[in-house]
Amino acid sequence: MALSNEKLIGKMAILGVLDESYLSEIKKQGWKYCVGKAGSMDSQKVVAAIETAAKNEKVIQSGIYRETHSLYHAIMEAFHGVTRGQVQLGTVLRTVGLRFIVVRGNPYEKKEEGDWIAVALYGTIGAPVKGLEHEAIGLGINHI
Amino acid sequence: MALSNEKLIGKMAILGVLDESYLSEIKKQGWKYCVGKAGSMDSQKVVAAIETAAKNEKVIQSGIYRETHSLYHAIMEAFHGVTRGQVQLGTVLRTVGLRFIVVRGNPYEKKEEGDWIAVALYGTIGAPVKGLEHEAIGLGINHI
Amino acid sequence: MALSNEKLIGKMAILGVLDESYLSEIKKQGWKYCVGKAGSMDSQKVVAAIETAAKNEKVIQSGIYRETHSLYHAIMEAFHGVTRGQVQLGTVLRTVGLRFIVVRGNPYEKKEEGDWIAVALYGTIGAPVKGLEHEAIGLGINHI
Amino acid sequence: MALSNEKLIGKMAILGVLDESYLSEIKKQGWKYCVGKAGSMDSQKVVAAIETAAKNEKVIQSGIYRETHSLYHAIMEAFHGVTRGQVQLGTVLRTVGLRFIVVRGNPYEKKEEGDWIAVALYGTIGAPVKGLEHEAIGLGINHI
Amino acid sequence: MALSNEKLIGKMAILGVLDESYLSEIKKQGWKYCVGKAGSMDSQKVVAAIETAAKNEKVIQSGIYRETHSLYHAIMEAFHGVTRGQVQLGTVLRTVGLRFIVVRGNPYEKKEEGDWIAVALYGTIGAPVKGLEHEAIGLGINHI
Amino acid sequence: MALSNEKLIGKMAILGVLDESYLSEIKKQGWKYCVGKAGSMDSQKVVAAIETAAKNEKVIQSGIYRETHSLYHAIMEAFHGVTRGQVQLGTVLRTVGLRFIVVRGNPYEKKEEGDWIAVALYGTIGAPVKGLEHEAIGLGINHI
Repeated sequence: MALSNEKLIGKMAILGVLDESYLSEIKKQGWKYCVGKAGSMDSQKVVAAIETAAKNEKVIQSGIYRETHSLYHAIMEAFHGVTRGQVQLGTVLRTVGLRFIVVRGNPYEKKEEGDWIAVALYGTIGAPVKGLEHEAIGLGINHI
Repeated sequence: MALSNEKLIGKMAILGVLDESYLSEIKKQGWKYCVGKAGSMDSQKVVAAIETAAKNEKVIQSGIYRETHSLYHAIMEAFHGVTRGQVQLGTVLRTVGLRFIVVRGNPYEKKEEGDWIAVALYGTIGAPVKGLEHEAIGLGINHI
Repeated sequence: MALSNEKLIGKMAILGVLDESYLSEIKKQGWKYCVGKAGSMDSQKVVAAIETAAKNEKVIQSGIYRETHSLYHAIMEAFHGVTRGQVQLGTVLRTVGLRFIVVRGNPYEKKEEGDWIAVALYGTIGAPVKGLEHEAIGLGINHI
Repeated sequence: MALSNEKLIGKMAILGVLDESYLSEIKKQGWKYCVGKAGSMDSQKVVAAIETAAKNEKVIQSGIYRETHSLYHAIMEAFHGVTRGQVQLGTVLRTVGLRFIVVRGNPYEKKEEGDWIAVALYGTIGAPVKGLEHEAIGLGINHI
Repeated sequence: MALSNEKLIGKMAILGVLDESYLSEIKKQGWKYCVGKAGSMDSQKVVAAIETAAKNEKVIQSGIYRETHSLYHAIMEAFHGVTRGQVQLGTVLRTVGLRFIVVRGNPYEKKEEGDWIAVALYGTIGAPVKGLEHEAIGLGINHI
Repeated sequence: MALSNEKLIGKMAILGVLDESYLSEIKKQGWKYCVGKAGSMDSQKVVAAIETAAKNEKVIQSGIYRETHSLYHAIMEAFHGVTRGQVQLGTVLRTVGLRFIVVRGNPYEKKEEGDWIAVALYGTIGAPVKGLEHEAIGLGINHI
């Protein structure tokens, strides 16, 4: 299999977003990553928080559009997992409280596959009232 | 917060689907669960595999429609995370190889919240050619 | 309001699909309509059954594409109400048993609004097992 | 068939939202229900109006999240029928004027099926200009 | 084939939106059309700009709802091509800069097919930062 | 603007798919491309036809997954423009007859942006009956 079992970037991203103590494993791979939190009814604020963190912490190069483009689509894909139907929050009267991680590295055995990016989201989604919520997760993976 | 930190059913389902050794934690909660594998280009076969396992292993009662209905929607929601856009596999020329888990229990502090069901999926999605794939994850949660 | 209260084509289509005795009200308007049944896991068979009935009973003219085009989009819109998310049946392991009606007439006060078409669907959707189902409805309206 | 012909909750909800005089039939079943109106370009306001009515009139218990969760998904499903494609109103420059009903009861022959909830919407959708609109309907059904 | 090769309204709309010098070809057909620009993060502003232009330049009759209805759905369909997944702009943190054209005529050999409407969009979509964007196109066609 | 006006890959792809005589312009850029035709009710056959052509004519390298992944998503995005709502053909009883082009090159002024891929589709979509169809177009663009 072309995916290397020791370098499953999606699995590592999820474990990292679920448990901070796991981040050292990602560091050991020599991979770049950043973590953060975003809670909002405005879906665009969640996207912005992830993009800003990834640029500030140099996980992607902000001057190169192809890197922003790759990250954007990975974020959108992770959002599908969280929102499960419509990529909407406030417009359908719900809010999220999420932790996020962006990981960059090559999960394949072949060096030619180059870098890939994984965005994992974990937290809660629900009505804008404390306690009226359940958990949600999302994972987006893209070549970069 | 109404969700109990020791009983995060979504997080536990994901950890269980990523790592079999974690299943003992779910057992300790006294929760019902089942695990399995499903690989196919036919999305309906994946749905059927999960429903069959959950009924055979008594995670849900097969004679009661409300339980099947709850599970079905949790599966569909988990599929959104895996498919990220259209809940389709073969019709858009892609296939999945997934492990699944279905967990049933009450993740809330209040007893009145009753049972909830979590379906977590983890594996690969891609072209029907070995190696042309990346990881995918999905989580669906519903009251039952 | 431009919609005439005595000629609410959507309301009349729904009442007609719920109760055959109501069809005489539609006839009184001088409007064309047809009714039928379609049960299948193949979504295309439901579409075909409605199109065939509407052509056979001269609700639309089969030689004119604009009439088929109008009906097709009204069917698709009614399907959204029945399927509520993905316009899919068998591929997500579910089946429908539906009654349908196609009504053609002008629901507006102004004569210039010309004919409109309403497609109403009512029945059950669920697992391909008797009893594991609940009701569903859909209404599509288009100018023709 | 497991659905009882005398207790078709979806059909009764639609008839109730189309015609107030029908509400006495729902009352006869001993079922809880509430009705109301919501007109807006803001989809979240329509959701909020329905949730508020259902809680105020005790159709659902506001202190129990599983009841809010069930209602929310039933509302979203009914919205699919009204919006037919994207669950959006103002962001795609359209507005609705809707009557709604929420009905709670057991439509199945078996007592074990417990309570289900039906949300029916009926009204008009169109441009934010009087008269530029046509009818729309939606029905969502969920176990509660 | 019922579509006349000399009157391919979709092709002509696209060529017209890509290159102003092509508009004389549309004029030669005796067809009505209008062109314009719309740049915004608010999807409803793009819809409004196209509708306003089509009404002001008499491509559609503003007093007849069936014409507005036909145009609206053609715009929405063209938007699917531009947005490729969710018909959303600002809510998923992206913006567009588009040229648009609305063309009205009969592309079929048969006179009975009457008028059809084509909406073509061409421009860029991307992050709300200059240069972080790529091209996008959309075409919607409807009977009118 | 970062997009170079002389190298608008999307515009060139569309012009190339609409008119074969335009292909020489793409050749002049030194860009790789391939063209072909695909007509089917099976959406996966259209995807397969495009992927096969792009690999056979060396527009992408078949041994590198990141190139297949990039192409796949560009095809899916182009399909959104053609299908305008659900990425489905036969399952909603419609068929397409399409010409396609895949173009690979750097449309940006900066060399660091590397290669991008554009997939353009043009043809007809409609009922599986000759003449009951209208035109459709789609464009997908991705970094590769």
